[in-house]
Amino acid sequence: MTNTQVIIKELPQGELTQDHFEVRTGEMPTCADDGLVVKTLLMSIDAANRAWMQGATYREAILAGDVMHTYSLCEVVESKSDRFAPGDIVATEARWAEYCAVPAKAAQKMPTDVPLQNLLSVYGIAGKTAYHGLMGIGRPEAGETVLVSAAAGSVGAYVGQIAKAWGCRAVGVAGGAEKCQWVVDELGFDACVDYRDPGFFKLLKEACPQGIDIYFDNVGGKVLETTLFQMNDKGRVVCCGAVSQYDGSAPSGPRNLPGMIVVKRLRMEGFIVMDFHREDAEAMRNLTRWVEEGRVKVIEDVVEGIENAPAALIGLLHGENRGKRMVRVAPDPA
Amino acid sequence: MTNTQVIIKELPQGELTQDHFEVRTGEMPTCADDGLVVKTLLMSIDAANRAWMQGATYREAILAGDVMHTYSLCEVVESKSDRFAPGDIVATEARWAEYCAVPAKAAQKMPTDVPLQNLLSVYGIAGKTAYHGLMGIGRPEAGETVLVSAAAGSVGAYVGQIAKAWGCRAVGVAGGAEKCQWVVDELGFDACVDYRDPGFFKLLKEACPQGIDIYFDNVGGKVLETTLFQMNDKGRVVCCGAVSQYDGSAPSGPRNLPGMIVVKRLRMEGFIVMDFHREDAEAMRNLTRWVEEGRVKVIEDVVEGIENAPAALIGLLHGENRGKRMVRVAPDPA
Repeated sequence: MTNTQVIIKELPQGELTQDHFEVRTGEMPTCADDGLVVKTLLMSIDAANRAWMQGATYREAILAGDVMHTYSLCEVVESKSDRFAPGDIVATEARWAEYCAVPAKAAQKMPTDVPLQNLLSVYGIAGKTAYHGLMGIGRPEAGETVLVSAAAGSVGAYVGQIAKAWGCRAVGVAGGAEKCQWVVDELGFDACVDYRDPGFFKLLKEACPQGIDIYFDNVGGKVLETTLFQMNDKGRVVCCGAVSQYDGSAPSGPRNLPGMIVVKRLRMEGFIVMDFHREDAEAMRNLTRWVEEGRVKVIEDVVEGIENAPAALIGLLHGENRGKRMVRVAPDPA
Repeated sequence: MTNTQVIIKELPQGELTQDHFEVRTGEMPTCADDGLVVKTLLMSIDAANRAWMQGATYREAILAGDVMHTYSLCEVVESKSDRFAPGDIVATEARWAEYCAVPAKAAQKMPTDVPLQNLLSVYGIAGKTAYHGLMGIGRPEAGETVLVSAAAGSVGAYVGQIAKAWGCRAVGVAGGAEKCQWVVDELGFDACVDYRDPGFFKLLKEACPQGIDIYFDNVGGKVLETTLFQMNDKGRVVCCGAVSQYDGSAPSGPRNLPGMIVVKRLRMEGFIVMDFHREDAEAMRNLTRWVEEGRVKVIEDVVEGIENAPAALIGLLHGENRGKRMVRVAPDPA
């Protein structure tokens, strides 16, 4: 048996490219006490993967020579833990590898009554990040205007749909006219504005005639700066990501910070999904209902084959995905 | 009778100077229906005065040719309102002028059982801004580290003293070694760091060995940027002012925003004192008790004479004041 892996050959200083990765054949892992050997089925591809290469975040940094880290859905193939048996489906911090050894305490048993892909998209981190960020940090009221950047992305696509289901005006920001059209036509946003358009400020104003009450920010940078000028007093900025800042070596800050926070009494706040684990059951109840009612569409972007993981991540950083991107390493168990 | 006034001759594009002001003799105001004519006693001098010259904030902008706006304590000399009589002491939005006409609804009757100066300092906007910002936005717990910039200033001096009274470690940031020493010796902060020192980052780290839980930000800019790197997870930034940004024409934003908010799950939030009017009684009770117990010292910086108001404001923007700065236009009524 072989174990195909993808390693980080060199940490990127600027833009991430194929040259930073190397596909190789590794050893088969062995099972430690209180550990599992798992077979990777689906790997979540996230902008956060790139952030991990920037040094310390809320988790340990990735180093050159490491097999790339990932959040994955896996099948247990060997268990030295009472809590898991071969054949169990688990979610765990794993690696870009066909097989991994993981501590049992880092694995979470997953339900098998929904398609596995959904556990990475609407019922997974993407859907929960959208739900908890919007509801727990943004705290929308019906009738308010919710703006979200990376609107065609894994989280953004749900933020706008949840905002609509909650009775808000949902406006997206995305790159390119074609993608913006897709956000309106396919996801049902009220409007979507192309940040690459030289008239972005004015177009945003037209799309948000009552101003912006909540901005769900996935990108930081210039889009954040422009948005802050159009926030209403007491507006909230849900700080979910800063993808515009991850893939370059010289980030610059919005020039109107902290001025706009002071003047407009804004709240800007960051979070991780785990901060809201007490509200997970409520989130799942609402998301399931909205999916069943057709108010939230499940959009998934599946790339086949572990060897394509570097291209999948690089493409995501360039905004080529539509909805939640993942890499299928092996087919779902029958 | 004459009415000395100070007008804004020209709005500043960069640094504010004496040339932007002109002292002149104006007409005596006449009393409108439901209005008052008031005699100015004490004018509050605030960094916000400078921000008002930058265009729209939470209040109307000041225009070239206007008599400079101010928050003042005044004595009513003529009243066409049932609610006020000559001799009453009121707080009101007024002008840099010996006499003003103001609408009665914009005036608030003030108590006369404490020195008038205290109504602009510890029991006025300075003390209330410090109290509500720290307690209502920062929400400190005993043992946490509270950092405050402009620590020798009107608000900062109270923030640190209130933090100490609440059981926190209080660390200041100020400009110059002498001022920092004063903050420690006179105000009782645990430490105070000179932001002009080339080793600021390292000195701040030494002064906050447990990291920073709350940063009460009066300045924005580089001090904010440096502080964000040293905030603890789930830290709070009370966005009270951005004085480093007011008096220049090319503000630049902290390069680690919104990145640090995302990674450390920070909350940055702005406010005005009026947001917390329901907590005003509690604030007054606690401040009065702490003053009586000697735990909060009342620090006032009184400049004599309306003609010195421009210099008082310019000096404040350069950080020359110690505690709450105000201009005395006329002596307290006997």
